Amino acid sequence: MKIQLAIDRVTIEEALNLIEQTKDSVDIIEIGTSLIKEYGMHSIVRIRNAFPDVKILADIKTIDEAEYEFRKVYEAGADIATVMGAAAISSIDLCDRVAKEYHREYMIDLLEVEETRILQLKKYKNAIFAIHLPSDEKGAGLDQLVKRSLSTLAGVEQIAIAGGVTIETMELMNESGIDIVIIGGAITKAKNPAEAAREFARVRR
Amino acid sequence: MKIQLAIDRVTIEEALNLIEQTKDSVDIIEIGTSLIKEYGMHSIVRIRNAFPDVKILADIKTIDEAEYEFRKVYEAGADIATVMGAAAISSIDLCDRVAKEYHREYMIDLLEVEETRILQLKKYKNAIFAIHLPSDEKGAGLDQLVKRSLSTLAGVEQIAIAGGVTIETMELMNESGIDIVIIGGAITKAKNPAEAAREFARVRR
Repeated sequence: MKIQLAIDRVTIEEALNLIEQTKDSVDIIEIGTSLIKEYGMHSIVRIRNAFPDVKILADIKTIDEAEYEFRKVYEAGADIATVMGAAAISSIDLCDRVAKEYHREYMIDLLEVEETRILQLKKYKNAIFAIHLPSDEKGAGLDQLVKRSLSTLAGVEQIAIAGGVTIETMELMNESGIDIVIIGGAITKAKNPAEAAREFARVRR
Repeated sequence: MKIQLAIDRVTIEEALNLIEQTKDSVDIIEIGTSLIKEYGMHSIVRIRNAFPDVKILADIKTIDEAEYEFRKVYEAGADIATVMGAAAISSIDLCDRVAKEYHREYMIDLLEVEETRILQLKKYKNAIFAIHLPSDEKGAGLDQLVKRSLSTLAGVEQIAIAGGVTIETMELMNESGIDIVIIGGAITKAKNPAEAAREFARVRR
């Protein structure tokens, strides 16, 4: 299982520092939506320039203007861009096309997406599907969401999960057979982020 | 009917120039999602400082981290913030609460939101509801969308509409009884944006 570290609600300098401390324990660095909305695409460029070899996901959360946003994100240096599963199919089609053109990846964020819609989205064979509990719900109901979503997503190539994952819920993640676990505050807000990242790396299977 | 001018896919300098040219013909200046995602919250601060008296909507398209994003947007100087109707109810509740706290307004973007969900959202009495055709669909189906949505939204205080409105579709807007028409490229990409804005102001009722 890969670990994706979501970096949010910090300055670019703090983000660079967090990445320096944790990059050897994680597989993907997520430039969180808050960094993009606060500092713009520049946040991606800065982090890419500082860490040319790190795999970067830009959590742009595209829901419209899909082609424009995906091009900008890939041009800025991201390896993976995100689109909301709640976006129009015409928008997700564009994301799929632009990702292929750039030979990059993209993730469909299933936040608040219902089962019938998830079944529709499964046609995007190249996408990473992210099960996502709203952070506004602070981790409540994560286990039920995982169970429900995994059966709907059966057959999907790559599945990620986000939303209040802690060291205590890592065993659930290990057992669920998902591919990417997305961790935020449990590492970035730890007293020692480097040590916290190592701990997650140690318990993941 | 009020006119909201959506400014997208330009530099901050070009945005300032467009606002200077058009502000006397429009009621609300929308700092488009592309400006926020490209340049960050700084785009709001710059435009607010340059135009202290203009009514500004920041199209932040919040879909998670609602409290954080809305506070940032209001602190940056926006009068109106936007949240996706596809967000979790817990997130929209937070938007409603933060808007009240700041004595500001917010808009619920109904992009890809189905009828049953719209009916659920009508409990947000203070929200402006925006009927929204994906820009990725380039204006196709706008008239059907307006008709369908307006009957679902009956009783709502303030209704806006966005998605490929042109001078040709303004009569449909006038007749529909909506409160705010959101216009983008038909003004910003016109040879003479000041003249185009005056023309929209002239035909609106």
